[in-house]
Amino acid sequence: MKMPASFIAGDRGPWRIARVVAVRGEPLDPARALTVVEDGAAAAGGAAWVLRGVRSHDRYTTRAEKDQLTMSSPPLGRPGMHAALIPIRKSAAWWQLAQDERRAVIERSRHFPIGLEALPAVARRLYHSRDLGEDFDFLTWFEFAPDDAPVFDRLLLALRATEEWRYVDREVELRLVPASDGA
Amino acid sequence: MKMPASFIAGDRGPWRIARVVAVRGEPLDPARALTVVEDGAAAAGGAAWVLRGVRSHDRYTTRAEKDQLTMSSPPLGRPGMHAALIPIRKSAAWWQLAQDERRAVIERSRHFPIGLEALPAVARRLYHSRDLGEDFDFLTWFEFAPDDAPVFDRLLLALRATEEWRYVDREVELRLVPASDGA
Repeated sequence: MKMPASFIAGDRGPWRIARVVAVRGEPLDPARALTVVEDGAAAAGGAAWVLRGVRSHDRYTTRAEKDQLTMSSPPLGRPGMHAALIPIRKSAAWWQLAQDERRAVIERSRHFPIGLEALPAVARRLYHSRDLGEDFDFLTWFEFAPDDAPVFDRLLLALRATEEWRYVDREVELRLVPASDGA
Repeated sequence: MKMPASFIAGDRGPWRIARVVAVRGEPLDPARALTVVEDGAAAAGGAAWVLRGVRSHDRYTTRAEKDQLTMSSPPLGRPGMHAALIPIRKSAAWWQLAQDERRAVIERSRHFPIGLEALPAVARRLYHSRDLGEDFDFLTWFEFAPDDAPVFDRLLLALRATEEWRYVDREVELRLVPASDGA
């Protein structure tokens, strides 16, 4: 049985929320810290907000793309990494497209080649939220060495300039540093 | 906010469960009647079982297929119909395939042409359960006139003979008649 992961914002947690950018649409309530609970029912009393998502199968990548991405991707959980949580919602117009139309937009947007350019610097995990009735459709999680922050910034800029991103109607960017890096 | 639909089995309900076939894998506990609650939090005290799923975007159909299916599909809720609920689970091997590999299996299996052959007799709705952590991946719902039962039976036989169905590792078929047709 698959349990959703929970991203819990509050006063305390292993990740300090260093910066929040409401890229598009409604922001999230401010909070100091974030806790990520994988595969568990998270008690979230007093949380500023909780976002939930499940790790699921890939929806667009071909076998060749999937293998190439997997081969070049670093693992999550390396020590000393900074992180980012970027919840994203796409518009009704996106979800009304057929599979081949969505895939065509993703191809024209060079989504996977752009992603590859950030490898092996940026570790990534995608959580699906749409079928859970959440406010966002996806939660994207990234980890990278502090020195690789410019690689990650270029990735975000490149993706946000694409045709695909015209279908994004809500996006919030949270930049996270280990709480142990000092309050 | 999207709420899952609930399929609640118990002693009473608008649909009488006329027949159950455990096509593959574990059966479901026996029950007399079924209640379908769309888009609502269903109280299910004392239910034999509850299956949940969400209506979601199409995952495989191209625009041409989607338009053809939509054009030929009858509406749900016509009076006097019989119905079927078929929960389905696919194997881990299926979900590890990439999108192009899954699409290729579906194409080789002629899934959409086979479905078209049952139109306009059989009305259909697909619910997604996998990301909800349910025991099944999909709940498929069908409605057809009693006289069209043979068309529906042929549809099931044809699909179950496909390469795609080799990835189905649990399937239960429930045949339903309106409770008002007599207990």
